[in-house]
Amino acid sequence: MSGRRPQEPAIGVFDSGVGGLTVFRRIAEALPGEHLCYLGDTARVPYGTKSADTVIRYARSCAAHLQVRGVKMLVVACNTASAYALDVLSAELPVPVIGVVAPGARAAVSRTRTGRVGVIGTPGTVASGAYVRAIAALNPAIRVYSQACPLFVPLVEDGWTTGSVPEAVAARYLDKLAAKGVDTLVLGCTHYPLLRGVIANVMGPGVRLVDSAKETAKAVVETLRDRRMLRTDTRPGRREFYASDAPETFARVGARMLGGRTPLTQVEWVDV
Amino acid sequence: MSGRRPQEPAIGVFDSGVGGLTVFRRIAEALPGEHLCYLGDTARVPYGTKSADTVIRYARSCAAHLQVRGVKMLVVACNTASAYALDVLSAELPVPVIGVVAPGARAAVSRTRTGRVGVIGTPGTVASGAYVRAIAALNPAIRVYSQACPLFVPLVEDGWTTGSVPEAVAARYLDKLAAKGVDTLVLGCTHYPLLRGVIANVMGPGVRLVDSAKETAKAVVETLRDRRMLRTDTRPGRREFYASDAPETFARVGARMLGGRTPLTQVEWVDV
Repeated sequence: MSGRRPQEPAIGVFDSGVGGLTVFRRIAEALPGEHLCYLGDTARVPYGTKSADTVIRYARSCAAHLQVRGVKMLVVACNTASAYALDVLSAELPVPVIGVVAPGARAAVSRTRTGRVGVIGTPGTVASGAYVRAIAALNPAIRVYSQACPLFVPLVEDGWTTGSVPEAVAARYLDKLAAKGVDTLVLGCTHYPLLRGVIANVMGPGVRLVDSAKETAKAVVETLRDRRMLRTDTRPGRREFYASDAPETFARVGARMLGGRTPLTQVEWVDV
Repeated sequence: MSGRRPQEPAIGVFDSGVGGLTVFRRIAEALPGEHLCYLGDTARVPYGTKSADTVIRYARSCAAHLQVRGVKMLVVACNTASAYALDVLSAELPVPVIGVVAPGARAAVSRTRTGRVGVIGTPGTVASGAYVRAIAALNPAIRVYSQACPLFVPLVEDGWTTGSVPEAVAARYLDKLAAKGVDTLVLGCTHYPLLRGVIANVMGPGVRLVDSAKETAKAVVETLRDRRMLRTDTRPGRREFYASDAPETFARVGARMLGGRTPLTQVEWVDV
């Protein structure tokens, strides 16, 4: 690196795989001038079926990897890692750490009218109870109904997001939640917005869907603004992508997550 | 370990998770007097969607872990690891190494009458071309049709193995194979025998299903017999289980794979 000017620090974003690119995309749209650096831990994906100890270990190594590259903020763009590892990372890192759970919980609390909120996520996210705690801390009167949806991630990764099979899978998971009369449903996994259509069909038109990606991007903007950490240079920020396995597959599947706006051509392999 | 008598060596078996227990079960049934030691790499499961380099790295670390515990033979009870890593492990280890691909290929070649064989597996197993090569080496006149079935593993792990949704998923993957007129179908993933019912329904009664678990157990017996490595003691062998994440979940899901015969009470966590 000698002879090169040190780079301005980036906003570091990590997820177990490509799902967190939905969060990356919202941040990039909100803050085109910020440098962004994304790490997908595709060698160890998924996190959602693994234990708290293992997820914390993996989250620490992803954070350490991004730290080395110079970040001024860390975004944990994975619900399971946010649920299990956010406190640990916040305590250990010298930069602000933003997860996806708190912003999603805040949006749900502000939008529900009936006080009945549904949360769907991976088995890990649901088992952690993180959304239940986050919502109770904001308004203990709200009743939260949680449901793990383990087949949603494989369906999205297979590109199978419409038609009778995804609808039947969604009905199996969501019919009980719909029967509870929830009026707000948190999509507590970064893959789930890609199943928004079938989820909305099963839940019915009266239920608002909360997409944590959008809410997290808002929290990133607010935190950087409040701490006067926004980049002042008006030129577009750089975009860096890293994956711990199969960078070509990451680029191909990830392009879907980014909605075609940000080119996803150069993905570098890293050993986490 | 000082003061303890060195243990007799076991047959070491590993897989990315619980799936290889279907192979373990067949070996235990065929050789009740042998010591058996199983490692499920649940911290990094699945292998089937990961790259060759990563799968080889993981297979090496699983093999090293079992080596330390003293094994006289290594069984790679995972199709993806067999497809990518068997040559490497065979070259590097001082004990016989048996994979699941060659036994499955041999059974398919001996059973087909039309010379048209189907192979289903994970994306990794199919991309490796290992079954195509193994069958061609035995009989180059046989035509092999391969199909990746990425949702089968999540369905089995979710316990969702009967009914209209698994049948619709199976139809999506298998209709093309059925149309090719295959008369033999290799279940090229250790999870797939649990979907045997829906697979048989979609393929029709004229198609024989090859279960690699049974065939691999036969290969283990033959190899040990030929090399005069069978244990002569008539007392039942010991059974050891290790998992790299969530040993309780491993025990619960694994019990299904073992068919309730072998108790799966003590599973030790190991850091691979």
